[in-house]
Amino acid sequence: MDIYFITSNKGKLNEVRQLLGIEIKSRSVELDEIQGIRAETVAADKAKRAYAIVKKPVLVEDTALYINALNGFPGALIKFMEMTVGYDGTCRMLRGYKDKRATAESCIVFYDGKDLKSFSGRVHGTISDRTRGTDGFGFDCLFIPDSSKKTFAEMGTEEKNRISHRRKAVLKLKRYLASRR
Amino acid sequence: MDIYFITSNKGKLNEVRQLLGIEIKSRSVELDEIQGIRAETVAADKAKRAYAIVKKPVLVEDTALYINALNGFPGALIKFMEMTVGYDGTCRMLRGYKDKRATAESCIVFYDGKDLKSFSGRVHGTISDRTRGTDGFGFDCLFIPDSSKKTFAEMGTEEKNRISHRRKAVLKLKRYLASRR
Repeated sequence: MDIYFITSNKGKLNEVRQLLGIEIKSRSVELDEIQGIRAETVAADKAKRAYAIVKKPVLVEDTALYINALNGFPGALIKFMEMTVGYDGTCRMLRGYKDKRATAESCIVFYDGKDLKSFSGRVHGTISDRTRGTDGFGFDCLFIPDSSKKTFAEMGTEEKNRISHRRKAVLKLKRYLASRR
Repeated sequence: MDIYFITSNKGKLNEVRQLLGIEIKSRSVELDEIQGIRAETVAADKAKRAYAIVKKPVLVEDTALYINALNGFPGALIKFMEMTVGYDGTCRMLRGYKDKRATAESCIVFYDGKDLKSFSGRVHGTISDRTRGTDGFGFDCLFIPDSSKKTFAEMGTEEKNRISHRRKAVLKLKRYLASRR
């Protein structure tokens, strides 16, 4: 079965390929995203619209960062914070808060025109006082998972992939794909 | 010409009706919104999708709050900040910043299946240290326009409507509609 991972983000594609361990194709499709805090809402909508174009089974991943002190904001809107506030600015914004806890989520949605399945992986952690590290992508530079003292961006890919939110989501997807064979 | 103002927000509808001074119908249509910082992006997309359902000339309004210290964030995503951080939380979030300046924008998009026109009104001001006032709606309780010391929510409707971002947008729309007759 050909599956198309719909993304223009090479970092995501590489991580998902490494973690999944089976061959998937990729395709970059220009699609607007609906507004939402939850990664699943955004990914499910996008998967349906991607399928309408690609007409083959698709995978769409969306990532969210839920910050406790902000009652879960920005969630899946983190990409817009990156574009405006920036990650240094995000750390700065949280300096006035004692509670630095946050949850990173990766939600992968599979859709083949009939079955729509969501696989979510979550990791709890804290927001760093300042950005640190140069590996990874997105909010890796400010997120310190509870099992480490390093940000994701201070780990190599291998170390990150052993504990990441994306790993958890991909493993669920992998079990599902195996069960369909 | 029948024009339908697409909204489920009565506060917006009342303000636009008062300011416009001509009869418009209203209709609430459940539509997802695409993600975007700019009010115009969100409103234009929504107007096209509303027209596809209503099949009559439509008006869609979107509101944004661009906060200087956050490089324009959250813009049109302010509604998601309301749902999570809340307005008290937004004031709290900005306490650590000296620069409290922000711009309120109302963007009204008209679409009749052929002409797509945007009318934007902007007011500069500052974010209050705490929410104040009970009039108005949305971010009125934290936005102090430069021409006043009160938040929009501390003014009556009449006073707000004399200076608001929405007034400016509606007056542009009014001129356009008059020119079409």
